[in-house]
Amino acid sequence: MEIKDYIQENEGRFLDELFSLLRIPSISSQSEHKEDMVRCAERWRELILAAGADKCEIFPTDGNPIVYAEKIVDPNAKTVLVYGHYDVMPVDPVELWDTEPFEPVIKDGKIWGRGADDDKGQSFMHAKAFEYLVKTNRLKCNVKFMLEGEEEIGSTQLYPFCDKHSEMLKCDVILVSDTSMIASDTPSITAGLRGLCNMIVKVTGPDRDLHSGIFGGAVANPINVLCDLVSGLIDDKGRVTIPGFYDDVVVLSAEERELIAKTPFDEDGYKKGLEVDELFGEDGYSTIERTGIRPNLGVCGIEGGYTGEGFKTVLPSTATANISMRLVANQDSHKIAELFKKHFENVAPKYVKVEVIPCHGGEAYRCGMDVPAYKAAEKAYIDVYGKRPIPTYSGGSIPIVAHFEKSLGVKSILCGFGLGEDNIHSPNESYKIEHFRKGIEVISRFYHHFSE
Amino acid sequence: MEIKDYIQENEGRFLDELFSLLRIPSISSQSEHKEDMVRCAERWRELILAAGADKCEIFPTDGNPIVYAEKIVDPNAKTVLVYGHYDVMPVDPVELWDTEPFEPVIKDGKIWGRGADDDKGQSFMHAKAFEYLVKTNRLKCNVKFMLEGEEEIGSTQLYPFCDKHSEMLKCDVILVSDTSMIASDTPSITAGLRGLCNMIVKVTGPDRDLHSGIFGGAVANPINVLCDLVSGLIDDKGRVTIPGFYDDVVVLSAEERELIAKTPFDEDGYKKGLEVDELFGEDGYSTIERTGIRPNLGVCGIEGGYTGEGFKTVLPSTATANISMRLVANQDSHKIAELFKKHFENVAPKYVKVEVIPCHGGEAYRCGMDVPAYKAAEKAYIDVYGKRPIPTYSGGSIPIVAHFEKSLGVKSILCGFGLGEDNIHSPNESYKIEHFRKGIEVISRFYHHFSE
Repeated sequence: MEIKDYIQENEGRFLDELFSLLRIPSISSQSEHKEDMVRCAERWRELILAAGADKCEIFPTDGNPIVYAEKIVDPNAKTVLVYGHYDVMPVDPVELWDTEPFEPVIKDGKIWGRGADDDKGQSFMHAKAFEYLVKTNRLKCNVKFMLEGEEEIGSTQLYPFCDKHSEMLKCDVILVSDTSMIASDTPSITAGLRGLCNMIVKVTGPDRDLHSGIFGGAVANPINVLCDLVSGLIDDKGRVTIPGFYDDVVVLSAEERELIAKTPFDEDGYKKGLEVDELFGEDGYSTIERTGIRPNLGVCGIEGGYTGEGFKTVLPSTATANISMRLVANQDSHKIAELFKKHFENVAPKYVKVEVIPCHGGEAYRCGMDVPAYKAAEKAYIDVYGKRPIPTYSGGSIPIVAHFEKSLGVKSILCGFGLGEDNIHSPNESYKIEHFRKGIEVISRFYHHFSE
Repeated sequence: MEIKDYIQENEGRFLDELFSLLRIPSISSQSEHKEDMVRCAERWRELILAAGADKCEIFPTDGNPIVYAEKIVDPNAKTVLVYGHYDVMPVDPVELWDTEPFEPVIKDGKIWGRGADDDKGQSFMHAKAFEYLVKTNRLKCNVKFMLEGEEEIGSTQLYPFCDKHSEMLKCDVILVSDTSMIASDTPSITAGLRGLCNMIVKVTGPDRDLHSGIFGGAVANPINVLCDLVSGLIDDKGRVTIPGFYDDVVVLSAEERELIAKTPFDEDGYKKGLEVDELFGEDGYSTIERTGIRPNLGVCGIEGGYTGEGFKTVLPSTATANISMRLVANQDSHKIAELFKKHFENVAPKYVKVEVIPCHGGEAYRCGMDVPAYKAAEKAYIDVYGKRPIPTYSGGSIPIVAHFEKSLGVKSILCGFGLGEDNIHSPNESYKIEHFRKGIEVISRFYHHFSE
């Protein structure tokens, strides 16, 4: 039986099963839902076993449990690890929902409810593709499932879990459906995620706040100096001036950049949506490239002196800025932090003292288009959509994906089927049934191509 | 009888009278002292009449009363207007006082108590110099006294009072003893006060805070842009870059700059006291010139994005800075505000919107050394100290002095006899008896030279 037919025949049951997951309010950030987390993990176990897993274990952690399942068809065959999460975001403000967040309904061709897309709906497609392959005897590789309950609160437990259970989790590729695609008729694979390197800088001038009349003009003002230093971090071509900053940046091939250039992008609409008259970024790159494949530096917060009611004429003692750098492969967040610190201290003038405090960071992730699993995924999309998926590079960071590569030594294929309109993290989350269906199809085709 | 002898003969009474003023807790900023303000004004009237004034009137205002007195010796003679204030600063933290703030005592050659210097002690010297001249028939010019009770809270009532009573207050010069001199053996006259021009600038990028990963690198960050703009306001020679900013700045004569250079100044001690390794200011000027005779620009406050606990990776919508310019004669604060606004709007890049809000300002004041009253004052100091007073230029602003010139058309001579060690506005305020005596002498000699 072909996958399309299998889906059509079983869709009622698929949705019933998915709804049973959606009805559990597994909000990881709210402690009153602790038991719902456990219930949700247990429901997943039932469903994954019913779908055909050999075994499924729920691992307790210091946080929420991790569900692990596997089906080993042949120890010598390739192994796919599916990663997903069963926790969801809070539903406030609940009055903005048109339907009950945890009572899923179908309307206008969409499933409505918290988690419909992120990530119950998307991860459940993997369970159903897996079921199809098992029930129709088409599964030619081993499959493992790992579902966590803390993705929305930082995956704290998953980092040590991966490191501890690396043998159990051994695999050839990780499949993740927790991202979006460009549009319903424009399939895409998230080929990269940016890393992060956050720094706090503090500039100190005089040892106390001074009268700006008595001292102004003779003693350096730390806010002015901080502005000079921040301003100097980016040149007029939009490039970061820290020596060595770009040294390890992966240069994309002409083919990759050509594909990126095919991403539909309405620059006027983008600007209008943000109410800005012009865009600004690194010379020589498109907007999509600037946020996806190029690193940048921006100030997330700045503070100094007095900005309350009225006007206080003070020459302040200190000024502080929170500076964040988004990194790309193969920049190392620790190396960048060191380069930043060294540079900032070097260029600071002698009339102030500067303190540079590295904060948390995370590594960028990149799945090159030459990776066999990426090629298999491309073929699967072509089978279903009739066109080659566009590689997208997300400007945001999902540090756990970089950690998978570090801990387990394998790439992740980020084959998400969400849409921008799905309202993940917001009221009225939804997920198109068409995407649910096509996602199952693409996944089942992926197994086909990957195990060839 | 010479002035020295007169002081010696009457010093006990002088101090008793001054103490009667010091005992009244005339704290203008605290409403529970409303009646003390009136008592203090009345005590002044008694003392000034006893000293020889023809008449003395207490003018009620919407705030504290203004004491006005006069002695007209000859309608065709020159007229001196003495300005002072009878209100004082609060005494908190009172536990840091070694003696009772409003029970003056004499110890170590100093008068201790709130107002001993600022400004009861200093303004009372004028009453006693006046008394000497009257009682010894040496007064050859008309004298007017104007004492306000709101100097420490902004002189709000005095501005309209001057404008309304400009005929009554008509004079040839105003004498003010409400400043300090360089040191006991280094007499000085405050020849200039800086003006003020405050601006708030707001830079807006996108219409809302954005995810710094999704948008960072493609959309201008308003904090970075604000830093660029602020940084561009001062060049690497420490000069303000606003076109026309220096156009009206008075250039001091070589003689004036030579005298300023004689001001004793311990740069190492100055730096140590502020814990800065180096000073920074406009090229080509000394520290004393940079704060006194040169304008400058500094940021008094800056704010944007998130700087609370943790680190929020946001690309903020707006960033704001409070920028203050200290002005010198003959810069006009309104003109400078316009130049600033025009320049800031001109240089702002198109990818942000800027808003420039002028806040309150005040005019600089300068008493040129060629003014006859200044020359008379110089001679008076030479009579008493045996050396020429150094002109000092205060970096701070006393806007009412500039208003006197605007409203009454005359210069003020700022002949203060305080010292940095006097702890004005702080616990344990004091005033050296030697300065009290010498101040009376200098003032009486001033009348002598001025009426010649």
